[in-house]
Amino acid sequence: MARIAPLSGFPEWLPAERAVELHVLDTLRETFELHGFAPVETRSVEPLSQLLRKGEIDKEVYVVRRLQADPGTEVDDSTLGLHFDLTVPFARYVLQNGGHLTFPFKRYQIQRSWRGERPQDGRFREFVQADVDVVGVDVLPRHYEVDLPLVMVEALQRLDVGAVRMRVNDRRVVEALVRGLGLEDVAGVLAAVDKLAKIGPAAVGEQLRARAGASGAQADAVLALAAVQGTDLAAVQALADSLGAGSDALAAALPDLQALVDAAEAVAPGVVVADLAVVRGLDYYTGSVYETELVGQEDLGSVCSGGRYDDLVSEGSVRHPGVGLSIGVSRLVSRLLKDGTVAATRPVPTAVLVAVTDEADRGRSDAVARALRARGIPADTAPIAAKFGRQIKHADRSGIPFVFFPGGEGAAPLAGQVKDIRSGEQVDADAASWSPPEEDRRQRVVRTV
Amino acid sequence: MARIAPLSGFPEWLPAERAVELHVLDTLRETFELHGFAPVETRSVEPLSQLLRKGEIDKEVYVVRRLQADPGTEVDDSTLGLHFDLTVPFARYVLQNGGHLTFPFKRYQIQRSWRGERPQDGRFREFVQADVDVVGVDVLPRHYEVDLPLVMVEALQRLDVGAVRMRVNDRRVVEALVRGLGLEDVAGVLAAVDKLAKIGPAAVGEQLRARAGASGAQADAVLALAAVQGTDLAAVQALADSLGAGSDALAAALPDLQALVDAAEAVAPGVVVADLAVVRGLDYYTGSVYETELVGQEDLGSVCSGGRYDDLVSEGSVRHPGVGLSIGVSRLVSRLLKDGTVAATRPVPTAVLVAVTDEADRGRSDAVARALRARGIPADTAPIAAKFGRQIKHADRSGIPFVFFPGGEGAAPLAGQVKDIRSGEQVDADAASWSPPEEDRRQRVVRTV
Repeated sequence: MARIAPLSGFPEWLPAERAVELHVLDTLRETFELHGFAPVETRSVEPLSQLLRKGEIDKEVYVVRRLQADPGTEVDDSTLGLHFDLTVPFARYVLQNGGHLTFPFKRYQIQRSWRGERPQDGRFREFVQADVDVVGVDVLPRHYEVDLPLVMVEALQRLDVGAVRMRVNDRRVVEALVRGLGLEDVAGVLAAVDKLAKIGPAAVGEQLRARAGASGAQADAVLALAAVQGTDLAAVQALADSLGAGSDALAAALPDLQALVDAAEAVAPGVVVADLAVVRGLDYYTGSVYETELVGQEDLGSVCSGGRYDDLVSEGSVRHPGVGLSIGVSRLVSRLLKDGTVAATRPVPTAVLVAVTDEADRGRSDAVARALRARGIPADTAPIAAKFGRQIKHADRSGIPFVFFPGGEGAAPLAGQVKDIRSGEQVDADAASWSPPEEDRRQRVVRTV
Repeated sequence: MARIAPLSGFPEWLPAERAVELHVLDTLRETFELHGFAPVETRSVEPLSQLLRKGEIDKEVYVVRRLQADPGTEVDDSTLGLHFDLTVPFARYVLQNGGHLTFPFKRYQIQRSWRGERPQDGRFREFVQADVDVVGVDVLPRHYEVDLPLVMVEALQRLDVGAVRMRVNDRRVVEALVRGLGLEDVAGVLAAVDKLAKIGPAAVGEQLRARAGASGAQADAVLALAAVQGTDLAAVQALADSLGAGSDALAAALPDLQALVDAAEAVAPGVVVADLAVVRGLDYYTGSVYETELVGQEDLGSVCSGGRYDDLVSEGSVRHPGVGLSIGVSRLVSRLLKDGTVAATRPVPTAVLVAVTDEADRGRSDAVARALRARGIPADTAPIAAKFGRQIKHADRSGIPFVFFPGGEGAAPLAGQVKDIRSGEQVDADAASWSPPEEDRRQRVVRTV
């Protein structure tokens, strides 16, 4: 028996909703290409050896196997799994194709990923991500840690999704502070701080003491530092000094974070702030880290995250340090659709329905539709030669704004009348020259509030 | 140990090749939207109950399971598999969302599918397909069986892939002929005829006798009919009559096939021919069937196939007869790339590399790049403030045609000089007004031979 039902965590959109998603994807692609990122797609599967190489088993990888494979075959390193992000496949792609790429290599990648996590609002099992990354050879100039987040800020602003706030930090700053406080288990401290938003400072303090070897004073110091936000990082240095956490490492890293915030402030005022609580769960980040929320919709979680990674793309003596960010397209689109803040101007691409007077005369209507399409006007012919009232009703129900009535016998082949079914206005028209108003020509996506 | 290697059957393209694929996808989308098809994507997975409902187990379905799932869980009907085409998911989507759609519902869908078959030239395990379908409610006017193949012919012509030949047939014609010859096992006969191109007429004749219950004379008659090709189907009627295979059913179906060929001839002369050997393997087709080859590259197999299906999209008393065709995008693109008949004008989107005179002055270069992008000109800044010769070399290696040198201190912020590194010509330019020649503005894909 066939099961016809939605699958939790596997979102699908109606056509008018898909038009909104396409608008988002088009806007992202346009922005990325203007900034010189080249398009890449990777296969959907990687060997488990690739997917699990960073110990990311908590990503809930989906394993893919042929139904007709020998059922006795064990899952091993060469078993294929669906990728859970676009960074790991990109790392493999760069290592595999390095000889054909020019470095620093900038690419964008817009593709689906899969994670077997419990579905929640804005968190899916199958989802679209849009990533930009740049990787160098052996070295990667620091300015890319400023450039790439600004590309994403521009992309989000072009999407007109309302105000966004990008919170940035630097793993080197955090590590310097943690070590400056005399704590050795940096990973343990980061893991605890990463949960701040979720479980609150009291519980994080408890974890720091119980699992990261912190004294009560050290835990309090970590929490005090993690609470620092803003655009003036002198506060960090001052607080670190007062806590006895200052160090050469901190003095070396802090100006870079300040420079990132300053550069962003100059290009996109009020968007980017430093936030020492942003540490990102992934263990491959080694420099700047980024998280981005929609202002007033922080409950959705980050819609654009990433960071710098020095050792992810490496094999033997080959090393490609990189920096990248990823926009959660499905998360963003699901919220846009839920809020109804943007919508397609009509549910179909079609601008004009060409009426059919008689099935025997369908060829005349087809010719009219062809003439319109040849000038870039999306046109369809009526399904059947019903009474005109019914054909108009079909256009109305479909969301097609214009109906073109071809002339009868004796009329020029492309002549007729066109009716705007919203206003009821009907005028003489020739399919070789008539155009709808520019705003009706193509299905568009517009802000509704 | 991480495995860095291509996976047979899972194609990936270099950035300049991906640009070609994107050009194909853009052209298809543009064509489909001009014809009023609305965009739909479906999830990548379906329950096995859906995927196997037509007994399509030979499609080599990939099963998808969480790595951390209970290993004792048996594969059953609710186990998820990756879809092997876009028709089965679309059928489920229509049944699931019928209440939100207007019928006849026309949609296009451009997405990946997966089949665990043995990879060959042009036959992949992961591949992109581009489908158009229209489904009605209870009935679907016959003209859609003419309209949709012509949409695909137009799409292929817009792709400029060289001459194509679409071979069409009608399952009702074939069934009438088979029954007219006194054969009962229609499916058996079709299965044998479907192998004509692969195993030749002698072997097909043998199969007809051995497995489809045909006498020698009946097998010969089937082969004689299957050899009929052309645009004038009077030959079919004459041959059927001479073989004693004429019937009312044939007389009813043949004019529809003739009308399809005639309509196609009027719109796209020389492209569509009737071919009684085209029967399509899938058992859900009930009317017109289509296959399309690149002329002179028939070895690639069909690049666009489909047909009419009356019973695929149905559940209980709900029935949505449909017709659809699918372009094998990966197959087509792999051949275009292999032949080198089309290519991107450059490997990256970037038109202009803005040189950096001094790292301290990078902000000036960033501002120039921003000014260019604001006018739709893809621009990037140089990775490092190396000697200009090295920056020009980086542009050259990357395939970026222009290098913009910002003015020094005292110059207007957006003033400088721009060099066409192909001709060596260098002129004064202002980033607020200078544009590259129109043909260099965007990365394009052009025919090379």
